Amino acid sequence: MAGKLLYAQSGGVTAVINTTAAGVLAAARDHGVRAYAARNGILGVLREDLIDTGKESAAALRALAHTPGGAFGSCRYKLKTPETDPAAYARLIEVMAAHDIRYFLYNGGNDSADTALKISAYARRSGHALVCVGVPKTVDNDLAVTDCSPGFGSVAKYVALGVREASLDVASMAESSTKVFVLEVMGRHAGWIAAAAGLAARGPLDAPHLILFPELPFDEDAFLAKVADTVARVGWCTVVTSEGVRNAAGQFLAEAGTRDAFGHAQLGGVAPVLAGLVKQKLGLKVHWALPDYLQRSARHIASATDAAHAEAVGRAAVEYALAGRNGVMPVIERRRDAPYRWAITPAPLAKVANHEKKLPRAFITRDGFGITAAARTYLAPLIHGEAYPPYGPDGLPRYVQLKNAPVPRKLVPWPGG
Amino acid sequence: MAGKLLYAQSGGVTAVINTTAAGVLAAARDHGVRAYAARNGILGVLREDLIDTGKESAAALRALAHTPGGAFGSCRYKLKTPETDPAAYARLIEVMAAHDIRYFLYNGGNDSADTALKISAYARRSGHALVCVGVPKTVDNDLAVTDCSPGFGSVAKYVALGVREASLDVASMAESSTKVFVLEVMGRHAGWIAAAAGLAARGPLDAPHLILFPELPFDEDAFLAKVADTVARVGWCTVVTSEGVRNAAGQFLAEAGTRDAFGHAQLGGVAPVLAGLVKQKLGLKVHWALPDYLQRSARHIASATDAAHAEAVGRAAVEYALAGRNGVMPVIERRRDAPYRWAITPAPLAKVANHEKKLPRAFITRDGFGITAAARTYLAPLIHGEAYPPYGPDGLPRYVQLKNAPVPRKLVPWPGG
Repeated sequence: MAGKLLYAQSGGVTAVINTTAAGVLAAARDHGVRAYAARNGILGVLREDLIDTGKESAAALRALAHTPGGAFGSCRYKLKTPETDPAAYARLIEVMAAHDIRYFLYNGGNDSADTALKISAYARRSGHALVCVGVPKTVDNDLAVTDCSPGFGSVAKYVALGVREASLDVASMAESSTKVFVLEVMGRHAGWIAAAAGLAARGPLDAPHLILFPELPFDEDAFLAKVADTVARVGWCTVVTSEGVRNAAGQFLAEAGTRDAFGHAQLGGVAPVLAGLVKQKLGLKVHWALPDYLQRSARHIASATDAAHAEAVGRAAVEYALAGRNGVMPVIERRRDAPYRWAITPAPLAKVANHEKKLPRAFITRDGFGITAAARTYLAPLIHGEAYPPYGPDGLPRYVQLKNAPVPRKLVPWPGG
Repeated sequence: MAGKLLYAQSGGVTAVINTTAAGVLAAARDHGVRAYAARNGILGVLREDLIDTGKESAAALRALAHTPGGAFGSCRYKLKTPETDPAAYARLIEVMAAHDIRYFLYNGGNDSADTALKISAYARRSGHALVCVGVPKTVDNDLAVTDCSPGFGSVAKYVALGVREASLDVASMAESSTKVFVLEVMGRHAGWIAAAAGLAARGPLDAPHLILFPELPFDEDAFLAKVADTVARVGWCTVVTSEGVRNAAGQFLAEAGTRDAFGHAQLGGVAPVLAGLVKQKLGLKVHWALPDYLQRSARHIASATDAAHAEAVGRAAVEYALAGRNGVMPVIERRRDAPYRWAITPAPLAKVANHEKKLPRAFITRDGFGITAAARTYLAPLIHGEAYPPYGPDGLPRYVQLKNAPVPRKLVPWPGG
């Protein structure tokens, strides 16, 4: 088949974005299409910094499927409009043409769908034969149209598991030590990850006892009252907070202005702010945790459902590209909740780009501190199953480091750097 | 056999302290000895708050072996000397006698070994037929005599795994986003856990690039120079810091005086302090993580070696108790590094109590930021193998909540509360 396929990773990486990459490369090989990858997302295209995935061994490509992070490098780079930055678009097309790239697959979130859409439209207008397909990915689960986003199910499993494990620890110690535990999870604008922590609870006395969502303003009095009441009833209390919780004035609690001894602004976290509040106002011993990247790179406990989604969108993206379906994204469609049934279908990138799917109010309990049965029904299948990586004799997972052999350059360097 | 066995858990819990409990209960049952547990450690004995483990189902006791936390409750309670608090000792003996307890197994760290030793000596002097046996446990690995402490291998595996996973994430994003990642791990006085993070590295460019140990004073200039140099050479940098790192004046960095906007002292962490330093002095984008209890409760990725140690010390403690070996503790003796071979042997509690095993200087590289080959040889076998818990249809481990049926009280309440 004529023409090559170019795959690139964009935005924050996940535990299973490489599972998608492995799906893309396997499907391309099945079709006899040569596949390149761009180093560091769209930056690699602009810089003509391309990787020949054909130089990797079959074993390395198999291991890619269970390796976290972004194997080809990712980027945070917002492409402007063609009107604002025509040189960038001309360069993208020049690089694609120089390497006979006919299919461009961009694996990312909202911004990346927007980038893929812009390139797709520009190529069509400029008469260049390029098929652009978006591939979904984000731990935040805030992509529109798709029922869920690959990467979310694994971080959801990680946080629900973390709440269950750490709460057993707190329960053991509460009589004479820590009584309140605060866990801060990702999700600056949408509370999906915080909501997933709610799956740890099976009954009304189970942790987490409070979840703080970015969708609702923080109410200090209600928060402290519920923590105090929980400690009185249960003996201890676990709080899960989204990093994006804001006060009634709209300010992030994490930026509430913590300073070090020299008056320098500290790099915040909501958890230490809430922990300080609990200690000062309630006089309770408190611990807090902020797993940060540990949560989105935890391939060792990836959800099997999530890994299956991730591979399937990668494979489907190649099918759509080769079928000439320009400007689409494979999305996950839910057919049934229990037993969980799903399928991959194409959606127009225009419907995905620049939309943000917030947690519905109906997924949050009336008091604002928990998740509803509807939320549980939606979330439960996404953390089902364990997609364990293989381990080596060193007691650690056998994660692969690809060779990432560069494709020889054919053009002059991009002046953009 | 006449007389009952009483088992209690003390101090910070671990991912495998219940594996030890399961070993104790299985061995007691094998010998036909009734086993009670004290609720919340020695406090449960003082309060005559005892649990009849005979009321648990066989399935629950099997599940206990893979459940993190302390199933009977733990405590932070330092028993004074018999001279200072004779009433407490009289009460302990009174409770033991009232319930015909002849064997007392206390599962904990340094302080708990001291408690077991004091009770053992007091019982002998007062002519009460009680055999006291200590059972080792601590994530800090700072217990003397034993080659390692049950609980440490699992947290060691967790931190090495976390460094490897999160560093793949950082490496993917470094070109246009985060360049430095700081992971704070437990270990206030001994750097064993921090050292274990070093197992993630296979070559000189691998993460972690810097480890900060509580055994060495923090040198800000050397730290910043090494971070800057690593970012220049590798493109990014992972730092692991022990929570117990101190400056040259002996102050904990975590207590360097961070304040919120209202001037209240914040509940610190070293990681945000170091992250602030990197941002202010080097101008690099930085992320930090502080897993806190997540690390010591991570039964989902427990080390199989650690779980085997934990069960073995539990079983051996029962054998020693029934053989009348008063005042001993089963310890782990290393017979060979590779292939790893070990055995359980008895050690006098007097040699374990109130000693603290620091990380040897020979385990730290000359520059103070890494681990030596000797450290790797010691640490490597301790994280070998994965002792996975079974999972339920909810996608989470099947951890057990015991019934913890109380033993009817026979005495008046303890005035100590």
